Amino acid sequence: MLDISRKHSTLRIAVAEATLKLAATTMALIQQGRVPKGNPLEVAKVAAIQAAKGASQLIPYCHPLPIQFVGVEFALQERAIRITATVKAIHQTGVEMEALTAVAVAGLTIYDMVKAVDRGVVIGNIRLIEKRGGRSGAWIRPE
Amino acid sequence: MLDISRKHSTLRIAVAEATLKLAATTMALIQQGRVPKGNPLEVAKVAAIQAAKGASQLIPYCHPLPIQFVGVEFALQERAIRITATVKAIHQTGVEMEALTAVAVAGLTIYDMVKAVDRGVVIGNIRLIEKRGGRSGAWIRPE
Amino acid sequence: MLDISRKHSTLRIAVAEATLKLAATTMALIQQGRVPKGNPLEVAKVAAIQAAKGASQLIPYCHPLPIQFVGVEFALQERAIRITATVKAIHQTGVEMEALTAVAVAGLTIYDMVKAVDRGVVIGNIRLIEKRGGRSGAWIRPE
Amino acid sequence: MLDISRKHSTLRIAVAEATLKLAATTMALIQQGRVPKGNPLEVAKVAAIQAAKGASQLIPYCHPLPIQFVGVEFALQERAIRITATVKAIHQTGVEMEALTAVAVAGLTIYDMVKAVDRGVVIGNIRLIEKRGGRSGAWIRPE
Amino acid sequence: MLDISRKHSTLRIAVAEATLKLAATTMALIQQGRVPKGNPLEVAKVAAIQAAKGASQLIPYCHPLPIQFVGVEFALQERAIRITATVKAIHQTGVEMEALTAVAVAGLTIYDMVKAVDRGVVIGNIRLIEKRGGRSGAWIRPE
Amino acid sequence: MLDISRKHSTLRIAVAEATLKLAATTMALIQQGRVPKGNPLEVAKVAAIQAAKGASQLIPYCHPLPIQFVGVEFALQERAIRITATVKAIHQTGVEMEALTAVAVAGLTIYDMVKAVDRGVVIGNIRLIEKRGGRSGAWIRPE
Repeated sequence: MLDISRKHSTLRIAVAEATLKLAATTMALIQQGRVPKGNPLEVAKVAAIQAAKGASQLIPYCHPLPIQFVGVEFALQERAIRITATVKAIHQTGVEMEALTAVAVAGLTIYDMVKAVDRGVVIGNIRLIEKRGGRSGAWIRPE
Repeated sequence: MLDISRKHSTLRIAVAEATLKLAATTMALIQQGRVPKGNPLEVAKVAAIQAAKGASQLIPYCHPLPIQFVGVEFALQERAIRITATVKAIHQTGVEMEALTAVAVAGLTIYDMVKAVDRGVVIGNIRLIEKRGGRSGAWIRPE
Repeated sequence: MLDISRKHSTLRIAVAEATLKLAATTMALIQQGRVPKGNPLEVAKVAAIQAAKGASQLIPYCHPLPIQFVGVEFALQERAIRITATVKAIHQTGVEMEALTAVAVAGLTIYDMVKAVDRGVVIGNIRLIEKRGGRSGAWIRPE
Repeated sequence: MLDISRKHSTLRIAVAEATLKLAATTMALIQQGRVPKGNPLEVAKVAAIQAAKGASQLIPYCHPLPIQFVGVEFALQERAIRITATVKAIHQTGVEMEALTAVAVAGLTIYDMVKAVDRGVVIGNIRLIEKRGGRSGAWIRPE
Repeated sequence: MLDISRKHSTLRIAVAEATLKLAATTMALIQQGRVPKGNPLEVAKVAAIQAAKGASQLIPYCHPLPIQFVGVEFALQERAIRITATVKAIHQTGVEMEALTAVAVAGLTIYDMVKAVDRGVVIGNIRLIEKRGGRSGAWIRPE
Repeated sequence: MLDISRKHSTLRIAVAEATLKLAATTMALIQQGRVPKGNPLEVAKVAAIQAAKGASQLIPYCHPLPIQFVGVEFALQERAIRITATVKAIHQTGVEMEALTAVAVAGLTIYDMVKAVDRGVVIGNIRLIEKRGGRSGAWIRPE
């Protein structure tokens, strides 16, 4: 781990996204609440929050930090679900990895809940959208 | 969790893939062994193995199972790294989620190690390639 | 841990219960879907499943075992929620602790989600209802 | 998780309780140090401390925080054990969930150690007794 | 991880040892039950059992397996504590790492509980004593 | 846990060491990069970092704290590997246990990777070398 002992503690915010591609019939099952194991979006939200809090246990060079906010949102499209996670903490290091871990685990959880009917699901486009706070200042992904 | 008590324990194999898109300069740093924190591929391999073993702790409806083999490989391309994970276990349920979790966490770990120089990295195309064993038999992703 | 190496692997089932006592106004919030952080029952179900899978990490003399099924149900009463968890596994040891851990963590999760409006919630009556499988045979709690 | 970035870090204290009801013969075994696996109270104390430190991993909307003190005490009665946990931390959020998780896991651990002789044990009355620190000030459970 | 899918499941036993060297005054505190935080041997035993169950989460190439028995014993000498752990499981792989992890964590736990009075404690001689089961048969450390 | 609420948060540094004794032939395998499962030193470094971050989950009376730096180094000798770990954090409590846990887990990981060829490996001399920060000031192990 890099030494962060001389950095300042400030409010850090990170927003990450992922996109899940599913069959139209799978999207219909989700939207009609007919996935046998429950509502994949509700379950994925909980899994994503837990994964954000545990990111440093998954990713070796990720610093442990007491995160303060994790928001997870889903935008349903015809054959895709866009997952967005926002993470906040007051700390010396950023929270990008927490936000990226949240969207990845949300995607894996939805995959797991629909895989019996749609083995071809693809999780893609896991990326940082925005980052605020810290010495390097704000970063917003260029279009 | 679905009830699996009537399923047979057989050898289960799953192969999953992910693709990391990086800047050409970042690929050069990795290939020349000049990433400051160490070799991202070595670290990502360890993180992926640990994540595969812990998949059921991340993914709510994923059954815990004693996995027997996790293999992680990296194919370096000009501006991309293709990550492949193979998981095996003798169990009543498949090991897809373990293989998918492995490639996702490998991707997140590489991201984390190069993010100081390349904030635009994208992890994509996380998907199952092949699956063997179990009542439903073999499945190979169509081209 | 007791030595279990001479016991037989058979299907083990355990059912446990807990009762959460809440204010009538809190019950109304839950039933009307107006708890600010989300649906406490959906979140509690996920937390309970994860806790059942991790019971051996919480309880020192609890054996780790690959559980196969966790079912969590909620019965809403006027000022109470009855939580029931059913756990199944084919193993040499029983799954009582997994079922009891599930209902306890479900109760703690609901508590956490309503504590801002109802600090007086009490979790009670955590107990085994039924147990099947193993040398000692079936046990059903006497009325 | 609720956004806590505007709250102040102050000393937070929470006290929680639970009551375990056991058969008189089981109480005698505990008091005479004749439980085969060891002293349930010593083991339960360690499990409770570990559970308090890990509460945010069990309870989805519970914030991770660096707790500073966990005290666990047992009051033995004729057919019951009253478990009390006190937790302290300097943080922006309270430590109620840590104290409640501690008493719940202490209860589950004692249950696990005596279940071979007393399957009818009931864990009840898990509740917050007192809470200090934070904007909302002190709260003491009314008699 | 090596592929173990062709190995047989048999009863595996491993015995490991470690030796903690402490000041004579620290040994006296332990023997007289005057260590402020509690009985280090009781706490170390619980920590060792939990660590044995979680060895695969600590050690990357260690297979997860449902262990069935962990025994931890302490032999008090004038200025040393000899820690012995015995682990059993019916599995395709051995349980050496579980036994070694148990004695290492027992040693670290005792260290932690006496470090305020004896900073010079040394944990040494962590080694396998005996191993039974599996294709390679029994192994006993030569004198 | 001792109450630390009146202590000051300052930069804490701890350095710990362990020594692994191996057969000369095993040392040769490591130095020539011919250990079948990979480079034990690379894997051990990752395992040590993860273990340092998770020390409070292993050791009951160890406080959780957001560590900021873990450095792990290996000095290869003819029949031994000396492992050194340095840990830093700004906190009210020291980071000795994190450094000691790191070297112990590094040693166990190397052991695990060479045990198929060298069952006689011994991990010894796990000890604190140096400690800085906090009310008690600096401590350096006397020669």
